[in-house]
Amino acid sequence: MDPLPTLKWKGDSLRLLDQRELPCNEVYIDCRDVNSLAGAIRTLAVRGAPAIGIAAAYGAVLAAITTDSGPDFIEGFQAKLDKLSGTRPTAVNLFHCIEIQREVFRKTGNREDAIKALLESADDLLAQDLDASRSMGRLGAELLKPDSTVLTHCNAGGLATAGLGTALAVIYEAWDRGLIRKVYADETRPLLQGSRLTSWELIRAGIPVDVLPDSAAASLIRDGRIDAVIVGSDRVAANGDIANKIGTYPLALAALKHGVPFYVVAPLSTFDLSTNTGSEIIIEQRSRVELSSYGERQLLPEGAGYWNPAFDVTPAAAITAIICEKGVISPPCEKTVRNMLDGVDMFL
Amino acid sequence: MDPLPTLKWKGDSLRLLDQRELPCNEVYIDCRDVNSLAGAIRTLAVRGAPAIGIAAAYGAVLAAITTDSGPDFIEGFQAKLDKLSGTRPTAVNLFHCIEIQREVFRKTGNREDAIKALLESADDLLAQDLDASRSMGRLGAELLKPDSTVLTHCNAGGLATAGLGTALAVIYEAWDRGLIRKVYADETRPLLQGSRLTSWELIRAGIPVDVLPDSAAASLIRDGRIDAVIVGSDRVAANGDIANKIGTYPLALAALKHGVPFYVVAPLSTFDLSTNTGSEIIIEQRSRVELSSYGERQLLPEGAGYWNPAFDVTPAAAITAIICEKGVISPPCEKTVRNMLDGVDMFL
Repeated sequence: MDPLPTLKWKGDSLRLLDQRELPCNEVYIDCRDVNSLAGAIRTLAVRGAPAIGIAAAYGAVLAAITTDSGPDFIEGFQAKLDKLSGTRPTAVNLFHCIEIQREVFRKTGNREDAIKALLESADDLLAQDLDASRSMGRLGAELLKPDSTVLTHCNAGGLATAGLGTALAVIYEAWDRGLIRKVYADETRPLLQGSRLTSWELIRAGIPVDVLPDSAAASLIRDGRIDAVIVGSDRVAANGDIANKIGTYPLALAALKHGVPFYVVAPLSTFDLSTNTGSEIIIEQRSRVELSSYGERQLLPEGAGYWNPAFDVTPAAAITAIICEKGVISPPCEKTVRNMLDGVDMFL
Repeated sequence: MDPLPTLKWKGDSLRLLDQRELPCNEVYIDCRDVNSLAGAIRTLAVRGAPAIGIAAAYGAVLAAITTDSGPDFIEGFQAKLDKLSGTRPTAVNLFHCIEIQREVFRKTGNREDAIKALLESADDLLAQDLDASRSMGRLGAELLKPDSTVLTHCNAGGLATAGLGTALAVIYEAWDRGLIRKVYADETRPLLQGSRLTSWELIRAGIPVDVLPDSAAASLIRDGRIDAVIVGSDRVAANGDIANKIGTYPLALAALKHGVPFYVVAPLSTFDLSTNTGSEIIIEQRSRVELSSYGERQLLPEGAGYWNPAFDVTPAAAITAIICEKGVISPPCEKTVRNMLDGVDMFL
């Protein structure tokens, strides 16, 4: 499997596959400054925890390129990184990558050096992400039995990373090994990343996929039609609790109830030891319009309120294993999470 | 609360509020024959287990009106009832009401008698449904504590019945008694009956409502923000298992996990003693288009399969109580279900 064209540095801009237009149109947008990139992240032209981290790393390059050298250079650069930090609150990869770039920046002497060092660092982060996807794919595929039917939620694929995916990296590798019979993809309301993105990716890879309403997954699990649930994550807390797309928690409950393995696939860039438990994770609240209309059609009457959290928290106790690029973590997680991260520079 | 204008007999036609057009437009359609009514049931212009039962009862009147008297009258009439029976498979009210009308028909001597008797019977069924709603509302409201925030799924309101509802009858009555702080309504993919219908009904009644993605309900329940879950049903089996709109089962799992009462509100016309357990209930499968597009917008790529069941089964063990017009049934249900139905003519 080759990486998807999720994001690519073009010398003076970051080219993004505009995920808002999928599956109908394959359209690219070139972000030439931090404002346009921040808009792209906020409106989900690029999304997925690893992908927005790497996009922000290239955003730091854009920040340096688009800030005049001079006495206000450092302040101007940092303000642009602050803007990127403020785009989305839940995925920790965004903050990790921005912190790494701030550190890289601090070690440089002038604007030209900074641009060069930031670009090298962003390229490194992208390469690490691709390597991590390949490792997670291999480790995860080992856990699946032959002829598996698996269920996934939202999009944790090449579109959510630098191009190879987290949960879908496992599915791609397992498919290559002949272990996958079929994938069920929750449609994932309200933005339908399962319908629009995951099924698009899987069809592109030749893997059979059936899309279902999120609320139908529990019946499928109860009926014994799912061998494993495989999802990504936006943040892994020190105790092994995870935040992921809204709807992950009820899936985990159904899997637990019916004895189906529930796997979370997340690179180390998604781990956050400064978050002790899932209850400390800030959950992004999204707007009414995502629930109130689709295209021209109005779905909600005037006067109806809404509650639209983008993520939920699944406790470690409901997770069979977390697969990261360094190994497979099984509950109780906390000690293993700390061991896994021991010696990983980016978290020191 | 006055009954909603869900369905009304107009002398020679059945007028339906076209629920496909809500919440944008309040449009009525007049069904003058069985074909148009069958189409309205199949395409959900009228939906909800009690409402389609009563609509079919009036459909029997239309069947008699639109069949010429003569040697083929009986056969022609019965064929039209068969057509109504074939519209939707899961809600048992449809079959009950059609069986009642067949029995009424058998006792009549000619076409004029039949039309008169069928109409009286349909009017009786409608009146019974309204009475049942009022009783269930009173019995259910007794179970709620003051200042309750309740969660409901799909539409089990006046639009799903002759005009007063099942789950929403309880909420209306509890609101009148000052027991309700707020209602959360699952949007209920794929046809969004929660967004389009339940919120429309509740706003009309002046009751505060927040709509949420179906998959967000588990978080709301875990966070202690829901005092009771209240849903309707399309069929209650002899052992107390129930079929209801897809997504009911994961709600019940979350409620059970977090100790929140889970109430099912269903008139006796929804009970089916010939169905021993939920596993015997035929679950309607709906079409791909409900998942693949909304208005002009394509949501699924070519080649993506789908799984779109309209209902799921919730086991009696996950249900706190079933509220019917004769009382409140708590598990273990089977004996109580049989006692409740003892002496109810329509099931003999």
